[in-house]
Amino acid sequence: MANQSTIVIKLGGTTGVDFSSICTNAAELLKQGQKLVFVHGGSAEANALGKALGTPPKFITSPSGYTSRYTDRKTLDVFLMAVNGKVNSLLTEQLHKLGINAFGLSGMDGKLMIATRKDAIQSVENGKRKIIHDDYTGKIKQVNVTLLEMLLDAGYLPVISPVAVSMAGEALNVDADRVAAMVASALKAETLILLTAAPGLMEKFPDETTVIKSIPQAKLAAALLMAQGRMKKKILGAGEALQGGVARVIIADGRVEKPISNALSGSGTTIQ
Amino acid sequence: MANQSTIVIKLGGTTGVDFSSICTNAAELLKQGQKLVFVHGGSAEANALGKALGTPPKFITSPSGYTSRYTDRKTLDVFLMAVNGKVNSLLTEQLHKLGINAFGLSGMDGKLMIATRKDAIQSVENGKRKIIHDDYTGKIKQVNVTLLEMLLDAGYLPVISPVAVSMAGEALNVDADRVAAMVASALKAETLILLTAAPGLMEKFPDETTVIKSIPQAKLAAALLMAQGRMKKKILGAGEALQGGVARVIIADGRVEKPISNALSGSGTTIQ
Repeated sequence: MANQSTIVIKLGGTTGVDFSSICTNAAELLKQGQKLVFVHGGSAEANALGKALGTPPKFITSPSGYTSRYTDRKTLDVFLMAVNGKVNSLLTEQLHKLGINAFGLSGMDGKLMIATRKDAIQSVENGKRKIIHDDYTGKIKQVNVTLLEMLLDAGYLPVISPVAVSMAGEALNVDADRVAAMVASALKAETLILLTAAPGLMEKFPDETTVIKSIPQAKLAAALLMAQGRMKKKILGAGEALQGGVARVIIADGRVEKPISNALSGSGTTIQ
Repeated sequence: MANQSTIVIKLGGTTGVDFSSICTNAAELLKQGQKLVFVHGGSAEANALGKALGTPPKFITSPSGYTSRYTDRKTLDVFLMAVNGKVNSLLTEQLHKLGINAFGLSGMDGKLMIATRKDAIQSVENGKRKIIHDDYTGKIKQVNVTLLEMLLDAGYLPVISPVAVSMAGEALNVDADRVAAMVASALKAETLILLTAAPGLMEKFPDETTVIKSIPQAKLAAALLMAQGRMKKKILGAGEALQGGVARVIIADGRVEKPISNALSGSGTTIQ
């Protein structure tokens, strides 16, 4: 298939992940003819911008105890400024400075990513259940793979922000790890690399010497139990990507030199 | 030619220009098979965001008395957030809500617009001349027309922000009226419409009853002398567009119902 050689890379936004090393490494791989797609997050930038503008982030707790961001309309506007106007624009610029013809886009552009809006969310506040209706968060249902292939064939490096469009045309905040998984699946990518501020999935978190080298798809459920915090979403995303036809997912360190090559040569946790 | 029927529309950012009317009107025209390209500004949004974040806009005065925005690196970052993350994202969303498959992009994406950076600008402060080196402002030299045609042929409505990329890969603030003129020229568009908070070029500004219906290309120099403030840039842009092969430029009112259809049916100032 045309896309078997495409690698999708998710750049984690956590402190320590070295965008500069990732971009330099990407430039080397692109020169060798490798096709790449970048996906980034931006929660930290959105939180910081929201604080600076007097709309600090809000979080909700689900009845089952999960905490997630509450994106009301004001928060969505701040989120768009942070992820599209800051993270995406600056990453695209950084790549251009290295001679890479980057193409920044959000999931709204050309309906790259259509998501269903979570229009009624249960939340627990001070022990009381509440239904929230004005949340602009979504779950991706469809990726416009024709558009992505058009950009790749034209020689561009797509740089995708975690924003999707609803069926009603609204902008929605979507999870960047899941974006990366959906994009990799749509492209039937050879490899999905999730670069983060950790060396991989650790058997005994936070002991970095306990990184698990390899997880077969059949053991993902056990790995999900082992994963802490944000790592859970990465494991979920990995499962989705494998089910979607991606050959392997690597969770690897984004804080090192040549993080992409490093992951490809066996560092981190490979799930296949 | 394939693009003779394309209309490029510049949406002025001044108070009063009705984005909602423009978008609704665009939806009607697109249904009739009309190809459109949108170009927007964002200076007012950038100024407001800069103030909110503690980096108010700075201006410089050239030795010949012209005042222009001074875009140091910090101001550029705010500018990118405002024009890419706010104006472009929200306009793209607004179009999607009307069922239009909009495609927001800046001039960095796929090198849509390459500009030369003004790397040494003379400024006069308190009567003293000064050279400014850290200004991120540019003049567009090249438009990637292949990319624009690819997006138009795929059925998208390109929505372009006033950001270009330098030869060194830097993001640059560019003038939106000139962007519209360069894009219209590159596409050999039939018509360029500059929608603004005025009914057209007025012979006796600000008397709105003195709008000039029509200006032949040969009389643009005289029109330039008549134009006040921002209108000067529109007249300059109009001249560039006509020289670039655009059939006609219309400066028309963006504050009315159906502003595009209104301009096409003879309102405003037509330059050809």
